[in-house]
Amino acid sequence: MTGHTKTTRRGFLAAGAAGVAASSLAATAADSADARWIDALPKKWDESYDVVIIGSGFAGLAAAWEARKAGATVVILEKMRTVGGNSIINGGIIAAAGTPLQEKQGLKDSPEQLAADMIREGLGLNHPDLVKITAEQSWPVVKWTIEELGVQYTDHLVQEGGHAVPRSYQTHNGSGSAIVNQQLAKLKEIKQDVRTQVYVEKILRDKDGRVKGLQVRDGYVFPREGSGKQKFIRAKKAVILAHGGFSSDVAFRLKQDPKLTAQMDCTNHPGATSEMLRESLRVGAIPIQLSWIQVGPWGSADEKGFGLGPHFAQEVAAMFGIWVEAATGKRFISELANRKMRADAIMNIMNKGGNCIAIADAGQVHGHVEQNIPKMLERGVIKPYDSLEAIAAAYKVPIDPLKQQVADYNRYVAQKKDDQFGRYMHKDLTPLGAKMPFYVLRLMPKVHYAMGGIQIDTSGRVLDISTDKPIPALYAAGEASGGIHGAVRLGSCSMLSSLVWGRIAGKNAAAEKAWA
Amino acid sequence: MTGHTKTTRRGFLAAGAAGVAASSLAATAADSADARWIDALPKKWDESYDVVIIGSGFAGLAAAWEARKAGATVVILEKMRTVGGNSIINGGIIAAAGTPLQEKQGLKDSPEQLAADMIREGLGLNHPDLVKITAEQSWPVVKWTIEELGVQYTDHLVQEGGHAVPRSYQTHNGSGSAIVNQQLAKLKEIKQDVRTQVYVEKILRDKDGRVKGLQVRDGYVFPREGSGKQKFIRAKKAVILAHGGFSSDVAFRLKQDPKLTAQMDCTNHPGATSEMLRESLRVGAIPIQLSWIQVGPWGSADEKGFGLGPHFAQEVAAMFGIWVEAATGKRFISELANRKMRADAIMNIMNKGGNCIAIADAGQVHGHVEQNIPKMLERGVIKPYDSLEAIAAAYKVPIDPLKQQVADYNRYVAQKKDDQFGRYMHKDLTPLGAKMPFYVLRLMPKVHYAMGGIQIDTSGRVLDISTDKPIPALYAAGEASGGIHGAVRLGSCSMLSSLVWGRIAGKNAAAEKAWA
Repeated sequence: MTGHTKTTRRGFLAAGAAGVAASSLAATAADSADARWIDALPKKWDESYDVVIIGSGFAGLAAAWEARKAGATVVILEKMRTVGGNSIINGGIIAAAGTPLQEKQGLKDSPEQLAADMIREGLGLNHPDLVKITAEQSWPVVKWTIEELGVQYTDHLVQEGGHAVPRSYQTHNGSGSAIVNQQLAKLKEIKQDVRTQVYVEKILRDKDGRVKGLQVRDGYVFPREGSGKQKFIRAKKAVILAHGGFSSDVAFRLKQDPKLTAQMDCTNHPGATSEMLRESLRVGAIPIQLSWIQVGPWGSADEKGFGLGPHFAQEVAAMFGIWVEAATGKRFISELANRKMRADAIMNIMNKGGNCIAIADAGQVHGHVEQNIPKMLERGVIKPYDSLEAIAAAYKVPIDPLKQQVADYNRYVAQKKDDQFGRYMHKDLTPLGAKMPFYVLRLMPKVHYAMGGIQIDTSGRVLDISTDKPIPALYAAGEASGGIHGAVRLGSCSMLSSLVWGRIAGKNAAAEKAWA
Repeated sequence: MTGHTKTTRRGFLAAGAAGVAASSLAATAADSADARWIDALPKKWDESYDVVIIGSGFAGLAAAWEARKAGATVVILEKMRTVGGNSIINGGIIAAAGTPLQEKQGLKDSPEQLAADMIREGLGLNHPDLVKITAEQSWPVVKWTIEELGVQYTDHLVQEGGHAVPRSYQTHNGSGSAIVNQQLAKLKEIKQDVRTQVYVEKILRDKDGRVKGLQVRDGYVFPREGSGKQKFIRAKKAVILAHGGFSSDVAFRLKQDPKLTAQMDCTNHPGATSEMLRESLRVGAIPIQLSWIQVGPWGSADEKGFGLGPHFAQEVAAMFGIWVEAATGKRFISELANRKMRADAIMNIMNKGGNCIAIADAGQVHGHVEQNIPKMLERGVIKPYDSLEAIAAAYKVPIDPLKQQVADYNRYVAQKKDDQFGRYMHKDLTPLGAKMPFYVLRLMPKVHYAMGGIQIDTSGRVLDISTDKPIPALYAAGEASGGIHGAVRLGSCSMLSSLVWGRIAGKNAAAEKAWA
């Protein structure tokens, strides 16, 4: 379509000048002004800000902070009653490469290595220019959370699947809330609050294609369609889409991946739906890789949603223990393979009527997970056992193969080399069973993250499907955007990309020229 | 956005009624009527038809035939100078399950088995309702090509990768042209021609969202942007999108899969670009699985484009011979694995500096491939050798492993069971090397097909991103639509789906109520 954008109006006028309009063929330009996907700008805006941000997770709050620092007036719109989206309930690990903590632990790493990990595990679907910036900004952004936001991290580096080395900082409370709450607190200091229960109905572009504002419903009550009062919010400089992904939207995810039915549990909050993605596509954003929807392999079958299980299954059992197929008593994959490989492996086993368990022992829990062990036990997310025999009885595991597997695994620990699956061997590994009890979690993959989204350029600007050029005054950041993580997002890279690109979008949006 | 579609206009009027419009905030509805993505309908249409079809491949021509049979007036628009798109240069095999030819050859098959093959190899990304119809219509549509179009097929059933049994009819000349030319001839009999060099600039929807016609450039010269004269073509009943895929569009495919660089060869004609997909998304179609772009494993390194090589590599060497990694002298995958598995395997080997060859012998060629052997030899697409030693010398293959591989393979042929990769063993298999010379082709994967496209319902109607309901009077068929083939289209299922869904779209479009 490129190059033809100016011809419509001319073509229409030329046709009009011809002047022959049989009534059956007559259709006036006024008709089009009424069309439902053609959005009249309001004569009066109800509110007006330099930068209008949709979403109050990591990306939206980071954008708000940077935009305010740059002197812009800002409004943050959140459709739910509560702030923080998935960010405030996530696991609180953020990847950073070449950090002081890695240096202290003798771990060699670099942004180049992180980028290589992301692209290798992302099956090369990643947009390399976006990955490069993400990886280069990894330590700077963690440093920023520490120095500017006052976020506290443990001194245990977490290793999620697909990362070549342990490199992920863990918030002190094992949750993204440790960052979101600091973001909110710092924003509060500068009198920046979040407007909850504001649902965005339309993104409004003007005749030149510039985004000028939003049509919203103020006082919206999720999920009641049409609730709240319609208002128009002007964005003098720009709108930033930081609305997150759509993993909770069964109808939309079924289009892109029909395997992800309503029967599958999901780690996301119920508001992680597709309407803003749909709306951005409606006004011309470019869809990128929407069919790549991540299933997290570390969910627990004994709780709903994200819950507490992933902390045990990943940070304890995957790094320091083992994952085992119940029917065979054997490990079935490297516990540090990427999320897709592990989720696929578990689902293949489950589809044949089997199931998988994650096993670690009391000597292998630490930090915030250790603090949460009583709660996990109380909820039945993990169960304690005093022997392999007890585990075998509880989960119908053949005892001899299980014993052999644990013996083999403990040999790999001793030799610091996993002969079975080549898993990265952590320097602090201990033999499995060294300290009783064992803890066991029943693994259940859960829909977790949309790798796909709308295309942004290296400035965070949303590109136009008809021209591949930026849609003036429209930015996106975080899970709303696509292309950074390719086929498989690595664990702890969502917090990273959301914060990095939220900051970029906020800075650049604040630097836009305001419309008069 | 569902449910809010009526509120825009009301909201605007309400805001207008409030009457307070500071000049800095004033923006009138008239502004929006001018906006470049808001398309005024013309006062006068230059031409008018019941059904307007974009594209002149299998799908477009099948749609035209059915629409004309149903009494509709039809125009078929083709942007290129020549008709037939990729259809007229393709390999001419079409899958059908439970056919007379299979019965004659003692092969058990069913639409259910075909659907199962498509979904298994498509990694479950296929939309099951669309697959079901495609498979059920497979024999009816082949029968239709024979009885109604007069298409001639060989009596050799081809087996492409991922199909459980040989089931694909092969046109007598080994090309899709055998069907396209019959489609064109039958249309000519009813005085239906194809309008070449007509480029579609815009799909025009009216105030109720109905598609009413197109803005085109008549006399367009590919790839000259803006060439030709602007015209407006009215679609009284419907527009059918049958424009094919975008495999030749490097910029667009790089968005969805950055591995598919300009360095990769492509089997498609140069006009297989993205502008109609972009335009349909601009007016509200739903993108489905755009990042799944197929690379054909059977391309030849010694010719450009689709060429002749695939006939030898697939129909001869994959079914009756072997594919070998040069550096090892060994087979590296089942030659009848699906296209993705084979292309990935070859690209992994090539990325390490290696390469792969396809080997068969003179006793294994038959039919149209046999007729083309002289041409392939002349062009250097295949080369003849009198011994394994000669092959080993030419392609730097270690001779002993190669001899061992051929001996092993011939044992599998004798026992009718492939102990190495479990490949389907054709009933007519002969030992490799039974009749000299050997023929060898250098394999080179090439970008081939877009599995993704826009979402259609089971009536072939295009759905709307804001409502999930059909966009009134807009249909799609063939490679333009997505969701049928999932992650991996099986060879010979493109001709099938294009013809099946072209017919469905044509019939249903003709049954639409005309607008006054």
